[in-house]
Amino acid sequence: MMESKIPVGIIGATGAVGQRFISLLANHPWFEITDLLASERSAGRRYGDVVKWILDDPLPAQVADLAVRRADDGEADARVLFSALPAAEARTLEPLFASKGHFIFSNASAWRMEEDVPLVITEVNPNHLDMISHQQARRGWDGFIVCNANCTTTHLVGALHPLHLAFGVEKVFVATLQAASGAGYPGIPSMDLIDNVVPHSYGEEQKVETEPRKIMGAYKDGRFQFADILITAHCHRVPVLDGHTEAVSVALRQSATREDIIDAFQSYRQLPQELNLPSAPDPAVVVLEGMHRPQPRLDRMAGKGMATVVGRIRPCNLLDWRFSLLGHNTIRGAAGGSILNAELMAYWGKLAT
Amino acid sequence: MMESKIPVGIIGATGAVGQRFISLLANHPWFEITDLLASERSAGRRYGDVVKWILDDPLPAQVADLAVRRADDGEADARVLFSALPAAEARTLEPLFASKGHFIFSNASAWRMEEDVPLVITEVNPNHLDMISHQQARRGWDGFIVCNANCTTTHLVGALHPLHLAFGVEKVFVATLQAASGAGYPGIPSMDLIDNVVPHSYGEEQKVETEPRKIMGAYKDGRFQFADILITAHCHRVPVLDGHTEAVSVALRQSATREDIIDAFQSYRQLPQELNLPSAPDPAVVVLEGMHRPQPRLDRMAGKGMATVVGRIRPCNLLDWRFSLLGHNTIRGAAGGSILNAELMAYWGKLAT
Amino acid sequence: MMESKIPVGIIGATGAVGQRFISLLANHPWFEITDLLASERSAGRRYGDVVKWILDDPLPAQVADLAVRRADDGEADARVLFSALPAAEARTLEPLFASKGHFIFSNASAWRMEEDVPLVITEVNPNHLDMISHQQARRGWDGFIVCNANCTTTHLVGALHPLHLAFGVEKVFVATLQAASGAGYPGIPSMDLIDNVVPHSYGEEQKVETEPRKIMGAYKDGRFQFADILITAHCHRVPVLDGHTEAVSVALRQSATREDIIDAFQSYRQLPQELNLPSAPDPAVVVLEGMHRPQPRLDRMAGKGMATVVGRIRPCNLLDWRFSLLGHNTIRGAAGGSILNAELMAYWGKLAT
Amino acid sequence: MMESKIPVGIIGATGAVGQRFISLLANHPWFEITDLLASERSAGRRYGDVVKWILDDPLPAQVADLAVRRADDGEADARVLFSALPAAEARTLEPLFASKGHFIFSNASAWRMEEDVPLVITEVNPNHLDMISHQQARRGWDGFIVCNANCTTTHLVGALHPLHLAFGVEKVFVATLQAASGAGYPGIPSMDLIDNVVPHSYGEEQKVETEPRKIMGAYKDGRFQFADILITAHCHRVPVLDGHTEAVSVALRQSATREDIIDAFQSYRQLPQELNLPSAPDPAVVVLEGMHRPQPRLDRMAGKGMATVVGRIRPCNLLDWRFSLLGHNTIRGAAGGSILNAELMAYWGKLAT
Repeated sequence: MMESKIPVGIIGATGAVGQRFISLLANHPWFEITDLLASERSAGRRYGDVVKWILDDPLPAQVADLAVRRADDGEADARVLFSALPAAEARTLEPLFASKGHFIFSNASAWRMEEDVPLVITEVNPNHLDMISHQQARRGWDGFIVCNANCTTTHLVGALHPLHLAFGVEKVFVATLQAASGAGYPGIPSMDLIDNVVPHSYGEEQKVETEPRKIMGAYKDGRFQFADILITAHCHRVPVLDGHTEAVSVALRQSATREDIIDAFQSYRQLPQELNLPSAPDPAVVVLEGMHRPQPRLDRMAGKGMATVVGRIRPCNLLDWRFSLLGHNTIRGAAGGSILNAELMAYWGKLAT
Repeated sequence: MMESKIPVGIIGATGAVGQRFISLLANHPWFEITDLLASERSAGRRYGDVVKWILDDPLPAQVADLAVRRADDGEADARVLFSALPAAEARTLEPLFASKGHFIFSNASAWRMEEDVPLVITEVNPNHLDMISHQQARRGWDGFIVCNANCTTTHLVGALHPLHLAFGVEKVFVATLQAASGAGYPGIPSMDLIDNVVPHSYGEEQKVETEPRKIMGAYKDGRFQFADILITAHCHRVPVLDGHTEAVSVALRQSATREDIIDAFQSYRQLPQELNLPSAPDPAVVVLEGMHRPQPRLDRMAGKGMATVVGRIRPCNLLDWRFSLLGHNTIRGAAGGSILNAELMAYWGKLAT
Repeated sequence: MMESKIPVGIIGATGAVGQRFISLLANHPWFEITDLLASERSAGRRYGDVVKWILDDPLPAQVADLAVRRADDGEADARVLFSALPAAEARTLEPLFASKGHFIFSNASAWRMEEDVPLVITEVNPNHLDMISHQQARRGWDGFIVCNANCTTTHLVGALHPLHLAFGVEKVFVATLQAASGAGYPGIPSMDLIDNVVPHSYGEEQKVETEPRKIMGAYKDGRFQFADILITAHCHRVPVLDGHTEAVSVALRQSATREDIIDAFQSYRQLPQELNLPSAPDPAVVVLEGMHRPQPRLDRMAGKGMATVVGRIRPCNLLDWRFSLLGHNTIRGAAGGSILNAELMAYWGKLAT
Repeated sequence: MMESKIPVGIIGATGAVGQRFISLLANHPWFEITDLLASERSAGRRYGDVVKWILDDPLPAQVADLAVRRADDGEADARVLFSALPAAEARTLEPLFASKGHFIFSNASAWRMEEDVPLVITEVNPNHLDMISHQQARRGWDGFIVCNANCTTTHLVGALHPLHLAFGVEKVFVATLQAASGAGYPGIPSMDLIDNVVPHSYGEEQKVETEPRKIMGAYKDGRFQFADILITAHCHRVPVLDGHTEAVSVALRQSATREDIIDAFQSYRQLPQELNLPSAPDPAVVVLEGMHRPQPRLDRMAGKGMATVVGRIRPCNLLDWRFSLLGHNTIRGAAGGSILNAELMAYWGKLAT
């Protein structure tokens, strides 16, 4: 579709999410990696020599040969930049790049809840991208920041949104069993995850309880209005490499049978699927039968890691329905979520430089 | 306290729970292991030669030398028998032994919900043991069957009962992260728990939703009345050896502050603690500070594996309060629970032969 | 290359290795799965309904719909059969099928060391396949049995053979860290591999010490002559899903520098690579730099799981050189090894029916 | 035996080994913890408030209340100090303390191979402690540094020394499967040890190949003479919390039967056992039967974690005998090894102040 590929860069390229961006972008039909930005310590060196590659997909040879440049001066050749920065660095560096005209698709949490920053799951709230013009006007930027959601939020909303569209979601109870890769590398010490599980920080729970309300909320005239959904989360880290499992109970505003629920999941086709964007999973939601699925090792790669997998749909004794969901936390839940957002913008012609 | 030790036997002595019974009873001040009953295949052989010992406590030497006898003929020298049988075998063998006059303290699920069988957590409903005389009369037995609860139920009720006494528990949402040892040995294949978690069967969830209502319910004149508590459970198996973690939200009938909640846990002292029974944990509920506790590896041995550990007490967005709990599933949640029940009966002089 | 695909069947189709055969054969350019044979219990039922699929590659839809047939009557439509049977069943069933004219490519250990059965790693000893005519004559079969090696042997020989060709291998010390999947499903209980490693049985060590001597030995006029190589093995099972790691020290008959060793590995191109067989890895041996590689999670899929990965080449204080090797145990080490043998036979036109 | 307890301090008290020192010393009959030294960041604060306690033994209450003092000024009240410092810090701080008169029992690797520093396993080479006077004279110290060995070395020598005494050890091949705790906390990232094993650094292998030669070597007149033993090591990190497994082949100078080998292990009683030192395991070497033992989870606590466990004794095809050994790496292999050295010195009256 694209005549020539759009050059893109990755900020925070050596970390776990940075590596995932590289893996997903290496053979992308629309984007081409031209810039790898990292700490000053790596700057000037060949990427293949500085990265400790931790993915089982091999490091793409052409990327290995790129020279790393320092991230902290806000300079990059590519106008489109994917950010895999830690929150603290994203807080200062992303605005610096945006002020210099760069289009930032960020996986960091730093700006997600800002009142003029779109927090977008491509299937759910592409209309929130209209905020960009307000963001630019308000801040005097030529560039912009668009965030994707927290990994746990992403798949939770991936399963809730079909139900919200069909029946209205009113209350949500969610307990998570999150993979180690969600904490990056080195992340969780192995001594904490051998013969053990670790309760997550309250900060993670707070993200899961608030981000979905922004994402499933309304956008109008430069303002976001949060959805009226009550969420309570219990988050845990478990000895799993990739793939967050979430146990969910929901109260719906309209009554629904089990068949209605399944139908809502299976008929869920949104803009990314309709436009057949390169990274769009189709179906976006995979429904499994069987009381022992989903399982992270078996199901996390559904839709090449971009789908949300749902199973164990059964009545809840307290709310209306309960089910389990699973999704890949560093593909759809991180790098892939940002890339799909960028694909939509590219499709709309808004990434031309 | 006892003048001479009460001889006891273990039915299903070679399995994972059977081994735990042996480990806990080997140096018991009141009980002495005299009978080890197992399948016909092991009968007549030295226990140390037939068991594949899987505990990190070594097999006690004097027990290793005992000869195993077959369980299926309902014969044993000891009147008091602890049952570690699988449910299907417990269904037929436990009544056989009871009909021959044996006192059965069973960890099996087979008879737990029977209308004349006490399902007892020693701290919670020792009065339910009064059902024994009705059971004996109705069935024409000299012996009896007393059950302890499912491992997940045991610790859930261990934490709920203090709150129920103080404020009344109305609704419970629980999500579990259960240890592999709960499935016995060989149990869960390693291929299912390397880089993976497995949703539990619906049967487990149903036990967790119903057993607490019997245990925290009333007993009067030969009838159990279930407590009016609504419970919904999401159960998972995780790569942990021992120790079930449970994430709980509760609605209470009376309002309570965080300090009230903590005080209810910390002031919880029941009959086993008051009588200072040999296996009674004191405190019965251990309250931890810190958002990352409890953790199975660090906390499962609280109270020598007999206590329930509680932490992360914080408000719930949907119900009133949420917290995490943890308990050892094969000590208090299985063998130890039965033994504490037997200790109370022994204290009352009801195990004399 | 093939005008029409050769129909093939899988005996023992529901087990772990059977599933791997299906996964590797589902889209094979030369072979087409027509027969799935399993125990009587599964016979007559749809494969998708009886299998507990444990691979992360999804069960291919067209295979799921095949009806399973019983294996124990020695009947199958396909002449070419891949055997994933346990050793005890292979001992009786494989000759039954061979006697009925079937060509058996077996992953079982039952017939590997038989004096008229070729034990073949396609790169190493394709000439051993000449034994087939002797086997058929001697046993009066129209069919035949060809075995692939034990998973640990396969990759050990995969690394030793280049050195043996170049310098002559005289002595081998090998210590293994083997994956759980090597024991099939359910296989190793999870309680044995959480926070634990388990020494392997001596039988495994004996296979690793003897099979390589047959495979790297000579074949002449209907007789195998074992290679004069002394091997000692220490085998362990570790908490890894797929991928055997082996630490090797070797004494060579001719002296070699580190560069010579690396060159021997990297220049190793054999018949499967020259003929470009569909499943042949190219290169057959992947050499990694870095003292921390190979690692199972990162490297087991080299060559789509068909290559042997070598690293950590350094002098040995006792013998000449030491290194680490790694290979996928259920792909190249099991199903893939058999398939590559069959591909060579198909290329030679010896599987025509 | 002691009239009053000897005050001791721990340098590096907040780390993994520091915690183990505390756990082992908390109720020690001869020693009393008076000083906890750590980085400046923790100085002045209550130990219980700064430590992230990672052991399953609870943090002793009386230790939790001690105030931490800074380690970098070389000041401490206790004359006897156990060092759990990282190597780089030990390199500078341990001499500083020794020069101020402190008796340093160090677990760090920094000074182990120094020509005037005793590297002592209490059972093996207590005579090396005679070097202390030379060390003091040469360096002008009132204090001294005594090292215990690397965790892997400690148990390797624990098993080799009985054989060396009885038959003379000539050559050793060892492959290790080492626990995560050996790398301290945070140590190995969980992403490296989920579904994975990691080859160890060559530095570890070099320690295992050289330290035993010093320890089992001779001491005479202020000089160590290394034992004439050739060792080659392959080291790996595996997903195990505590307990190093080592697969060993040995060539002996005198021939020995399997019974001779077992007898050498079982009759091995040295000074710590004869003097009945408080932390001395008795037996020092535990011999297990069964081809699947030792296993870390089941056997690491033998002798309260102070013994070396041996099993799988069988002939080697290359050398004479092979066997597996296992030992607790942070008890005997680290803190416990230092403590036992200090106990011997205390017994000899050399720690009086």
